[in-house]
This record gives sequence, C-alpha cells and structure tokens, in this order.
Amino acid sequence: MIFIESKDNNLYKETKKLKDRKNRNKNNKYVIEGFRLIDEGFKANLDIDYLILTKNAYEKIEFYFGDEIRNKVKIYCISDNLFKDLTSTENPQGIIAVVDMKQKEFDVSGDFYLFCDKLQDPGNMGTIIRTAHAAGVNGIILSKGTVDIYNEKTIRATMGSLFHLPIYYDDDLLLIKKLKDDGFKLLVTSLESSKDFFKEELSGKVILTVGNEGNGVSEEVLKLADSRVKIPMPGGAESLNVAIATSIIIYEKVRQNSI
Amino acid sequence: MIFIESKDNNLYKETKKLKDRKNRNKNNKYVIEGFRLIDEGFKANLDIDYLILTKNAYEKIEFYFGDEIRNKVKIYCISDNLFKDLTSTENPQGIIAVVDMKQKEFDVSGDFYLFCDKLQDPGNMGTIIRTAHAAGVNGIILSKGTVDIYNEKTIRATMGSLFHLPIYYDDDLLLIKKLKDDGFKLLVTSLESSKDFFKEELSGKVILTVGNEGNGVSEEVLKLADSRVKIPMPGGAESLNVAIATSIIIYEKVRQNSI
Repeated sequence: MIFIESKDNNLYKETKKLKDRKNRNKNNKYVIEGFRLIDEGFKANLDIDYLILTKNAYEKIEFYFGDEIRNKVKIYCISDNLFKDLTSTENPQGIIAVVDMKQKEFDVSGDFYLFCDKLQDPGNMGTIIRTAHAAGVNGIILSKGTVDIYNEKTIRATMGSLFHLPIYYDDDLLLIKKLKDDGFKLLVTSLESSKDFFKEELSGKVILTVGNEGNGVSEEVLKLADSRVKIPMPGGAESLNVAIATSIIIYEKVRQNSI
Repeated sequence: MIFIESKDNNLYKETKKLKDRKNRNKNNKYVIEGFRLIDEGFKANLDIDYLILTKNAYEKIEFYFGDEIRNKVKIYCISDNLFKDLTSTENPQGIIAVVDMKQKEFDVSGDFYLFCDKLQDPGNMGTIIRTAHAAGVNGIILSKGTVDIYNEKTIRATMGSLFHLPIYYDDDLLLIKKLKDDGFKLLVTSLESSKDFFKEELSGKVILTVGNEGNGVSEEVLKLADSRVKIPMPGGAESLNVAIATSIIIYEKVRQNSI
C-alpha cells in the first residue's frame, strides 16, 4: 500500500482527470466506485489497474475481496479530503478502482442486438444495459452522439451488467448495414408508427433500435428501418421513458422466443 | 400580482415548508414546478392555489398559459434569490404552483390496479405512475411506508401523469382485501417464484403488486397473494430495476387484453 499525500501526486491527478470523457478515451481507462461494483468487476475479470481508498475503507478490503487482495492489485490510500475530489457520489464508500478498457470481441453470431441511436441520459443508458443483460441481448450497438457508457451515472445504473455485455461503437453505421445484409431485421421504435410492438414477429434475427429522449430515432437510421413499431398507450399519456419502452419490447422478444 | 419582498413573508414561509412531507400532509398542499408541468396541471383541472414566479418567468406567463391567466389564479413575484430556496432543481425555470390535494374518487370498477408495497425511490415511483397512466391502469394503491407521491422528484418523473391517475393509500390493506373478495387476483412479483409472468393469465381482474427495491414485497402482502410471478433473466443479471420490472408486466396485461 502506498500513501498519496498531496494533490500534486501524478497518479492522483491522472485519476481525477478520468472524470472527463475525453481523458477516459485518451488513456483507455475508466473509474468504477463502491465495494459491490468493484467486487463484480473482479468477478468479471476486468483489468483493474489500481484501487484508491480512504483509510477507513482500506481496513475493510479483506472482508470484501478476500485475503489475497493485497497481492492481486496495486493499492493507494488517501485522505478523505483528497478522495472527495475523485467522485461525485453524495455518500461515497471511500473506494474507487481504475479499470483498463478492453474492447470485448463483438460477436455477431447472436440473434438479438440493441441499437441505441443518440440516447442522451446516462441513467437511462445504464438501466437499458442492465435490462439487456438480464434478458440475454447479445450486444449493444451505439451510434455516434450517444452518451458515454463509462459515465459514472451510467456505470452505477448498470449494476455491474456493463462488465458482461459486449458493446460496439458503430460511428458510421457499417455494422448495422452488415447485420442487415446478414438477414437481421432492423426494428425501429417510433411514436408515429401504426403497428403495435406485440403484433410484430420478433422471434428471428432482430436489431431493436431506440432513439434520443427528445427526438426519437434519427432520420438517417429511420431510412434503414425494416419495420417501425410503437407501444400503444390506451391510458392517454404522451410518451414513455425510453428505458421503460426499450425494456418492454426487449421482453416481448424474450416472450416470443419462449413460445 | 403581489411582490413578496422578504423571507419573513408568511406565504413564502408556508410555501417553503411544503418541501417536507409532514407539512404537505398537514396543509393538504403540494408544489409543482416548471411551465410544462403547471400547464398540464391547468389542463387536468387541478386546484391551483397560487403561482410564485421570478420576474423573468413572470414575463412569459401569457405566452405559456394564455391571456386570461392573470384572472384565473393568484400570482406572486419574488427575487431570484428568494426563489432558489423554494426548489431543489438545478436549473429552475422560475415558476412553481401550489396545489390543493383533492382526493380523487377511487373508482373500483376497473379491472387493473397496481399495488406498490413499500417502494422507496421517488424516481422509480414517478416512472411507474407514468407507465401505469400510459397503459390504462385504473388506479394505484400504496401501502404504508411507500414513498410520498408528492415528493418533487416523483412528481417530475411522472411527467404530469400524476394528475390523471387515481391513487389510494391503503394503510391497513382493507381495500386490497375488499378487491380480492370482489374477484380480483392479487398477483405478486417475487424473485423466488417459479412462474414466468407471461405464462400467467392476466386478462381478467388483476392487482399487480410490486415491492421495495431491496427487500421485495413484504411478508404480510405475500400471504395474501393468489399467484406469484417472476421475470425470467436468461442473460444472467441478478435483478431488474423495479420500475422496469413493473412496466414489463403491466404491458403484458395490455398485450393479453388485446388478443
């Protein structure tokens, strides 16, 4: 264990910078926080670079991670005061881990992918990743302009599911076009559509597309759609939260697959 | 329009107190915020007691609410500085409305009610109310210990659906028992259950019960259950967000009703 004493410590400064997306991408690193999530990270074999802890949290690491933890990963301790600047959590547990991004192989042999087109809210993105993992979605594809999945709010909302689901940045829509050529149906959610989602055949190869919170799916992607669906709202509300809408349709495919 | 100059103004002090649940219940009033939501409130014929606005927001009221607004409701103006203490929003629009709670008649002639048992998160509660409204749920029943629906985070997440859905506080479970006597099936979500929700018959009279984020449905309510269901998670995550889980099952009933 190494004690970091000062704000001028290089590792401390580098870690603090990882709050910004551009630094995360430059250094290929991101931050996860809290005992439970970091434990999930170890179990999922993430490349955990180092831990930073307050003294208080340091005393609990064997309890949470087992006796071998000190041999498994580099550990730094800092004061509560310095720790505060590393996180935006209101009541932090006093532990963060810095993780190397490793691009998971994006396996396209599945039959169900989710495509998020310019989705903006970090909490929605995280909740969607969590549901997609639960439902057995084979991977998530993101268009340019979609919220960063390594945003701390997103990571928190995934509850660890981020570590299990392959994610692919398809900036130029090449993967979407390739999957369409391979027989995938590009299904797009749209408020203007007339077809209810449960009347759509979902049991085959499907890419479910969901869009931006305010504007829906972009024109560019709508043009590629093989089918448009909506969620009926017999009660009269104007719209659903996008994470809710996505989850409802994802589970309709789970249901249809099970018949 | 009356200008409130000081923190010592009685109406100002009374309004500020409405941030606390106990004062909301004592005075039978709650606060809604922002032009869009207040406009929804007017349209839904809420008993809006008065508006409090910053000068800046005051100039826009005809634009948002029409020319007659000054004759329709009492209006108070305050400085930006005083306004800040009335809200917890990060970027407030400078307008709140104080609304009289009127207990909507709880009509039990529907076939679909949602029962929230000790649900705790205000955002989850709001999202559930929004989905329930969209799906045409006939009303929401709350057990003792469930988060206050007039919490500002809850109200924000409902996107106005709160104004349209009858809500009933069933502290002693008497309504639940009465509905069961009237032929309703009390359906309870439970991780330990073995029956997938889409294998459950949902087309008749149903009360869907969802529980606390950490502990699920309470023992007391589980004992009353006619059937227990779970959402399958073929992908391997441990759980779903409760608002997501609730919405998925709500829409399975919409689907079954439509067949």
